[in-house]
Amino acid sequence: MSSSNLTETRSVLRWQAGRVARRAQDQVATEEPLEVRVNTRPVVVTMRTPGHDDELAAGFLLTEGLVRSATDIQRIAPYARNTSGNVLDVYLSPEVPVDFAKLTRHVFASSSCGLCGKASIESVRQQFNKIRSRLKLPVAVLRSLPEQLRQGQTAFEVSGGLHAAAIFDLRGRRVVVREDVGRHNAVDKVLGFGLLNNLLPFDRHVLMVSGRASFEIMQKALAARVPIVAAVSAPSSLAARFAVENGQTLAGFVRGDRFNIYSRPERIRLR
Amino acid sequence: MSSSNLTETRSVLRWQAGRVARRAQDQVATEEPLEVRVNTRPVVVTMRTPGHDDELAAGFLLTEGLVRSATDIQRIAPYARNTSGNVLDVYLSPEVPVDFAKLTRHVFASSSCGLCGKASIESVRQQFNKIRSRLKLPVAVLRSLPEQLRQGQTAFEVSGGLHAAAIFDLRGRRVVVREDVGRHNAVDKVLGFGLLNNLLPFDRHVLMVSGRASFEIMQKALAARVPIVAAVSAPSSLAARFAVENGQTLAGFVRGDRFNIYSRPERIRLR
Repeated sequence: MSSSNLTETRSVLRWQAGRVARRAQDQVATEEPLEVRVNTRPVVVTMRTPGHDDELAAGFLLTEGLVRSATDIQRIAPYARNTSGNVLDVYLSPEVPVDFAKLTRHVFASSSCGLCGKASIESVRQQFNKIRSRLKLPVAVLRSLPEQLRQGQTAFEVSGGLHAAAIFDLRGRRVVVREDVGRHNAVDKVLGFGLLNNLLPFDRHVLMVSGRASFEIMQKALAARVPIVAAVSAPSSLAARFAVENGQTLAGFVRGDRFNIYSRPERIRLR
Repeated sequence: MSSSNLTETRSVLRWQAGRVARRAQDQVATEEPLEVRVNTRPVVVTMRTPGHDDELAAGFLLTEGLVRSATDIQRIAPYARNTSGNVLDVYLSPEVPVDFAKLTRHVFASSSCGLCGKASIESVRQQFNKIRSRLKLPVAVLRSLPEQLRQGQTAFEVSGGLHAAAIFDLRGRRVVVREDVGRHNAVDKVLGFGLLNNLLPFDRHVLMVSGRASFEIMQKALAARVPIVAAVSAPSSLAARFAVENGQTLAGFVRGDRFNIYSRPERIRLR
């Protein structure tokens, strides 16, 4: 993937104290809408950075609980009647039950709030089983991930505007890295890569994200059975609570020489 | 607003190179779901930081084009049958036409993608008129905003996990600042504050955001008639394009001693 897909050149007026303002070329992160249709029915519109849209769609459907493996998906193809490249058709295998109601949790809930209150958070947990893995990740590997994530980011340096997510194995080898203006999209893409390449579950792996860890990130990690999530920046309260309830290890502020562990520290071998 | 609403204390294991890992207390940004109902019909579920929920709901409805002024809203109240505090009822004035179809643009588009392709971006633009303001903002004021924004953030310092948005007037006086785990929520809150307090349009004002500027931020600013948007971090391609098309001034990487202007630089008086 060339960085030219991920960024776009814009002409800007650059101002700096003590200097004369001047015209310059600036690279900005590409943001465009993507509509995903499932069996011809539109299910989501997300603002994303174009590229790996098939992974994004697959990862979204995985983390929403609609599909579980590559065989559940028959075909992913651009919607022929829209030439923008921003509409994608996903056709599920005939034997896959399509429960569109599962999607209503996110937005425009047609019934009641799927997340409001503890009962509903429980229901999210029950959809995907708790993680019970006893694996151990050496601290040296965890420490190495931020730098490795940065090396995998082709476009952040030039644009400063992209989130990144990556999957690493327990020896710290990078399986896949993706960048997107949307944090959740970057995560959907790496998980969708796993799904489409039959690499799931990612149950001996670490998900590393370049920014903050929200509830949504933890929920997506759980869907792909990832036992350890590491974030360069801060987790939210619900991310931490969700991690505790679902047996996920959550590390935050992972910046090489330090980190905080918000849940299940026993999976990090500190020495 | 005390910072204790915005953050939550979690027990963490803190690791630092060369030291023994130790238990510590960490402040994390509070994240909880909020469902907004309009005339008893659920229209959105968003993950937000509790506090100023009435502003969040009002700002969301403003920027979605459902309401235009405080008089369009009859009453905002917690939904009595859910005691979590995470469901809010908005009752519109009887004379306000409720076009729920307008909302479908965002997610779960029931018809076709409301944003995919140029034609649809045009349609968003047409919903809210282009900005034609000839006002001038002194560069000294623009430079002062990041520091003023930081001073208004009560919770970022302790949690590192909150976005902030603020409205300033042309003399750099802060009208309102709000923090939230969701960038779009922080913006909805400051605009909702304007709506509920009859301060709209914010057409002689600057919207400043602590992070990146996306399409969504620019669209929300347009709905409240804000002529100048300043972001501490990078804009996306669509934010820049949207700003150009809608006559908005967009400044990015605004960090005191430097910034880039992506559109309509004539509104910044450089000397």
